[in-house]
Amino acid sequence: MKHPVYFKHSPDNPTPLSHRVVRKVRFDELDPLNIVWHGHYASYFEDARVALGNFYGIGYMDFFNQGIAIPLKKFHVDFYKPLQFDVSYTIEALLHWNEAARLDFEFNIYDTDGGLQSSGYSVHLMVDKVQGVLVAKPTFFEDFCEKWRREEIK
Amino acid sequence: MKHPVYFKHSPDNPTPLSHRVVRKVRFDELDPLNIVWHGHYASYFEDARVALGNFYGIGYMDFFNQGIAIPLKKFHVDFYKPLQFDVSYTIEALLHWNEAARLDFEFNIYDTDGGLQSSGYSVHLMVDKVQGVLVAKPTFFEDFCEKWRREEIK
Amino acid sequence: MKHPVYFKHSPDNPTPLSHRVVRKVRFDELDPLNIVWHGHYASYFEDARVALGNFYGIGYMDFFNQGIAIPLKKFHVDFYKPLQFDVSYTIEALLHWNEAARLDFEFNIYDTDGGLQSSGYSVHLMVDKVQGVLVAKPTFFEDFCEKWRREEIK
Amino acid sequence: MKHPVYFKHSPDNPTPLSHRVVRKVRFDELDPLNIVWHGHYASYFEDARVALGNFYGIGYMDFFNQGIAIPLKKFHVDFYKPLQFDVSYTIEALLHWNEAARLDFEFNIYDTDGGLQSSGYSVHLMVDKVQGVLVAKPTFFEDFCEKWRREEIK
Repeated sequence: MKHPVYFKHSPDNPTPLSHRVVRKVRFDELDPLNIVWHGHYASYFEDARVALGNFYGIGYMDFFNQGIAIPLKKFHVDFYKPLQFDVSYTIEALLHWNEAARLDFEFNIYDTDGGLQSSGYSVHLMVDKVQGVLVAKPTFFEDFCEKWRREEIK
Repeated sequence: MKHPVYFKHSPDNPTPLSHRVVRKVRFDELDPLNIVWHGHYASYFEDARVALGNFYGIGYMDFFNQGIAIPLKKFHVDFYKPLQFDVSYTIEALLHWNEAARLDFEFNIYDTDGGLQSSGYSVHLMVDKVQGVLVAKPTFFEDFCEKWRREEIK
Repeated sequence: MKHPVYFKHSPDNPTPLSHRVVRKVRFDELDPLNIVWHGHYASYFEDARVALGNFYGIGYMDFFNQGIAIPLKKFHVDFYKPLQFDVSYTIEALLHWNEAARLDFEFNIYDTDGGLQSSGYSVHLMVDKVQGVLVAKPTFFEDFCEKWRREEIK
Repeated sequence: MKHPVYFKHSPDNPTPLSHRVVRKVRFDELDPLNIVWHGHYASYFEDARVALGNFYGIGYMDFFNQGIAIPLKKFHVDFYKPLQFDVSYTIEALLHWNEAARLDFEFNIYDTDGGLQSSGYSVHLMVDKVQGVLVAKPTFFEDFCEKWRREEIK
């Protein structure tokens, strides 16, 4: 499986941040073909995105507490293999570096044997009540990005 | 199909208010047995409850605008027949009279031929930020109930 | 919180079988009040029911492999406290003894501090393509119940 | 709003087939920001795709009846404006011409005032149990495409 390149990078950019969660296919996610209905991948990707955000302190709530929402601009999934009932899988979220005030997330779902089951991405804007869509990163996230660039984020 | 009696009534109580919506089974609601997964009935019942609330001016938003939420206390479904892909069905919501500050909703889902497909109920409390669970109906709803008792609600 | 008695028991009945799963509230389960929308409890209860079925070898697939489906006849939830974003909770499923060919499940959701968050039940019939609704337990499940009665099920 | 070009076309290709459905935002689709959670767009797009398939006789069931499944290969959404509670919107599905054995669907969601709310696409393979992924269109669909090319499909 050749992996699509969702976001282009300069070699100067810091390494993407990543986080993984493990989940199991549930009965209510299956369709009449006995595989996961495609619409549930939005929930799968979100699980890993929320876990990454919580881990690094840049989650939904961290933005909300600054009066900022991070609505989706784009959402994409590439499906390679179906997911069956009761199997476990790993969802990986990667946050890619972006100079602009947006969040570029890549996602990969791996089978228990490490095979790539699906991949995708989501792009998020930053919005507050006063300015609408932000053109500059909010201070707390700018500070975070500085540390990320200096490779001080673990 | 003998219909369960979900709420007991005195003969003095005003007739329940009712409203109906028509809906169609969607592919993403089907389970591996090719019938609607039972968890979706919460959405079906809610559709009719929202339509009734909007029709009579006592919906979620009407309560919210008074600072009151109406969280569920109980939710129940009795299933009689499965629902198949792409069939249409009618959801009926009935609001039963209650002297207390709560909402007693009954639901019936009918096939296109009028057969009873399922029934159920939901019970809602009224909650505000100051008093918590309300023991008396809020004024706007008390006014509504007076008209209901006088049979002035159409 | 006084716990409702969903199923009546003779003192001779074997102890209910039980199983627990731990889960975390996800963003996509929240409603505009920032609490879990009530319809998601069907998925929560099912998670614990599936885990119990798998653990004891009497799950959906075990019945399906005998040509038997176990559709819901009844579903019920009593809500005591709202569930907030990102909190963990424990879902307990209990399978109660029943002489008839049906499955009586009770569910309890517990907060991390052990408080009862909600409870409920589901009742399932057994159906095959030849006889429709079964009046007697299928052999594999009858065998299981014999062991359960003799307290040989761990 | 400049509309993305999701599928490239030669001027010789027949006009895309299209179909529209109207739907209303439901309470259970809202997130804590009081707008539709992005994962529900998969259901919205599917509604219009199913309606188009039924209208032209090339729906899921028409393929299934030939022993063919049409799993998703790609799914994409571009979000332009949020959807609020209880508003109506129109979902348009367009089936684009493709020489290969795949289905290229484009979707547009329009506000009641005709503004573009979101757009997206899905790409489907054709799979049967014998050959796996089909390289040639199945006969019934090839026949349909001949008529489509001759502009005999209304």
